[in-house]
Amino acid sequence: MEILRHAILDQGRVIGNDILKVDSFLNHQLDVSLLNTIGRAFYAHFGQLKIDKILTAEVSGIAIAAIAAQYFNVPVVFAKKTLSKNLDPDTWEGSVYSYTKGQTYQIRVARRYLKADEKVLVLDDFLANGEAIKGMKEIIDLAGAKMVGAGVVIEKSFQPGAEKLRELDVDVHALIRVVSLEHGQINL
Amino acid sequence: MEILRHAILDQGRVIGNDILKVDSFLNHQLDVSLLNTIGRAFYAHFGQLKIDKILTAEVSGIAIAAIAAQYFNVPVVFAKKTLSKNLDPDTWEGSVYSYTKGQTYQIRVARRYLKADEKVLVLDDFLANGEAIKGMKEIIDLAGAKMVGAGVVIEKSFQPGAEKLRELDVDVHALIRVVSLEHGQINL
Repeated sequence: MEILRHAILDQGRVIGNDILKVDSFLNHQLDVSLLNTIGRAFYAHFGQLKIDKILTAEVSGIAIAAIAAQYFNVPVVFAKKTLSKNLDPDTWEGSVYSYTKGQTYQIRVARRYLKADEKVLVLDDFLANGEAIKGMKEIIDLAGAKMVGAGVVIEKSFQPGAEKLRELDVDVHALIRVVSLEHGQINL
Repeated sequence: MEILRHAILDQGRVIGNDILKVDSFLNHQLDVSLLNTIGRAFYAHFGQLKIDKILTAEVSGIAIAAIAAQYFNVPVVFAKKTLSKNLDPDTWEGSVYSYTKGQTYQIRVARRYLKADEKVLVLDDFLANGEAIKGMKEIIDLAGAKMVGAGVVIEKSFQPGAEKLRELDVDVHALIRVVSLEHGQINL
């Protein structure tokens, strides 16, 4: 993932000691060629698992999952953060604790879009505390489907998410690890 | 767009007289093969304009824009609905009136991702009252960029959005028009 590495080092911006902004290519402006490289990398790692579906969460996971799904040739479902008329009342729910906001919110998937025994790959942009992926795992478990793994573009390995997920028996694969962001410095 | 037409007629669900749910393929679960067909159709219509960027708004426009951008070979920027640490304080803002909620909200793009004189194509899933696209046009105008057109997957032609946008000199292109949704019936 040399291209991703360069994009992070050249364009990433550090806020405080723990926020890495990659909004020039990953979650505000999207570099679609880089997203394809990312999608191919996820396929190289998870492609042999014969998944039925990719699950992600709005907002930042959507473009990553949609582009990656082209390689897996499966549908994407994205978990929603807000209730709306466009969401079925009949949903599976997972809890996500937000450390920045100090509160728990629910993410939801309409039950009709996750079926028992489906093999589901979870994709997301960042892995920090693992809360979003844990919430998606709750949804997959409730549906009786099988979570075959979690692919993240960037893991902040100085935060405990990957370890927490491995304790839940999740096969986590990060395309790149950020070791620290101290003193405004990105250490990969 | 026979494939899109069939997807809407076979899978679309009508709520009341004006909501068309297409969450099985367009805005909750995503049929990525159909999104590619949609992307190619937008490119067939707008490809000769040599655009610099695609602008959309979270959430439902993101996957559509990301897949379509592969044909145009340009970056996507998606306007954000919520302030967060990941968004620059220095933004262009547009107003969107929500008829369902009866209130106006702001959508925002970091100024660094829209430059003066860039040729910008706006893409979105639905065109109903035209508010989201009008808000994106405000952002493009504030940036001094040029909006070359607006592509929407589904226009609800019984609502006034397309007309309102044409009054603002926006070249609107809908891949399919829904003429009415009365009595639970989808009329294309």
